[in-house]
Amino acid sequence: MNKIPMGPETLIYPLPIVLVGANVDDKPNFLAVGACGIANAEPPMISVAIRHNRYTDKGIRQNMTFSVNLPSRDMVKETDYCGIVSGSKVNKVEVCQFRIFYGKLKNAPLIEQCPINIECKVAHILDLGSHSLVIGTVEESYTSDNCLTGGKPDISKIQPLAWVRQPSRQYHALGEVVAKSHSVGQELKGKE
Amino acid sequence: MNKIPMGPETLIYPLPIVLVGANVDDKPNFLAVGACGIANAEPPMISVAIRHNRYTDKGIRQNMTFSVNLPSRDMVKETDYCGIVSGSKVNKVEVCQFRIFYGKLKNAPLIEQCPINIECKVAHILDLGSHSLVIGTVEESYTSDNCLTGGKPDISKIQPLAWVRQPSRQYHALGEVVAKSHSVGQELKGKE
Repeated sequence: MNKIPMGPETLIYPLPIVLVGANVDDKPNFLAVGACGIANAEPPMISVAIRHNRYTDKGIRQNMTFSVNLPSRDMVKETDYCGIVSGSKVNKVEVCQFRIFYGKLKNAPLIEQCPINIECKVAHILDLGSHSLVIGTVEESYTSDNCLTGGKPDISKIQPLAWVRQPSRQYHALGEVVAKSHSVGQELKGKE
Repeated sequence: MNKIPMGPETLIYPLPIVLVGANVDDKPNFLAVGACGIANAEPPMISVAIRHNRYTDKGIRQNMTFSVNLPSRDMVKETDYCGIVSGSKVNKVEVCQFRIFYGKLKNAPLIEQCPINIECKVAHILDLGSHSLVIGTVEESYTSDNCLTGGKPDISKIQPLAWVRQPSRQYHALGEVVAKSHSVGQELKGKE
């Protein structure tokens, strides 16, 4: 098999796509972010990479809090819109008809229509070049009651989007289950 | 709609699942990591969260380089295995029959069978609690020639795994395309 060099590219598939929320001058604003991940387990932390000139960046620094809202596939249009326009020019909450609520932190805006909502307090901000990597400690998370089964989040009800950043720039649905994690690999234990 | 508090949980779906590689005492070792994301665009950077006692962590600190290898769905057993055993006890490369190659950095081991390989130089290591968040600058990336279409990575040939960490702990395939990003949201522009 031949390996073809692609240059220095972040070719990771798929990425979660989330709506990062912050109050900017006391008004809720949201930005679609694919450069988002888990940063730590104990305490639970999430990282989001935000371009310096983004309006949301201003709000995060004003309050040192932010939210992470996971859209379902029926919110794909609103999610994409929140990535291509700036909150400095339009009121995204109004255009997208987001219903906003606040939780434990009081100033990290949460979107009712999103099946999952997470409130974060900023723990670190790293200036890495084009983006700030904002690392937040999760203070509370919420699931819509119609997306639970037996009291736990149910992925078949949540219906999250999986983003393929490049080169195709497409949102995918989750496909079929391939295997159970922390389980299927046990089969190789006999080969050691 | 009611929102049910879940406690401080990192409920992000789906996560990419990658094999992070490092030479430990000059021998290649790999760890399955779902807490992996894009950290910056210019220069391109990737973050991986690695639990402190992990054998791979030792190798990353020895060389200050690491690799990110994206497995395809036919490698699900090997991928899962690399998350549940330690390189301090078994030779994962041998058990998984990984064919190793080196690229630009010379000491970040890459897996030939993975359709995508990325070489990183460590830029920052943040101790966040249970995990170190290792942020690397991408030096080079590679795609297997049989996963390209028109010279670009083709997601339908790569067949990546999407990980749902909790509560179901399952690897999924990518499903159908829901919409084009940076595009479907344009429809809302008329509503401003």
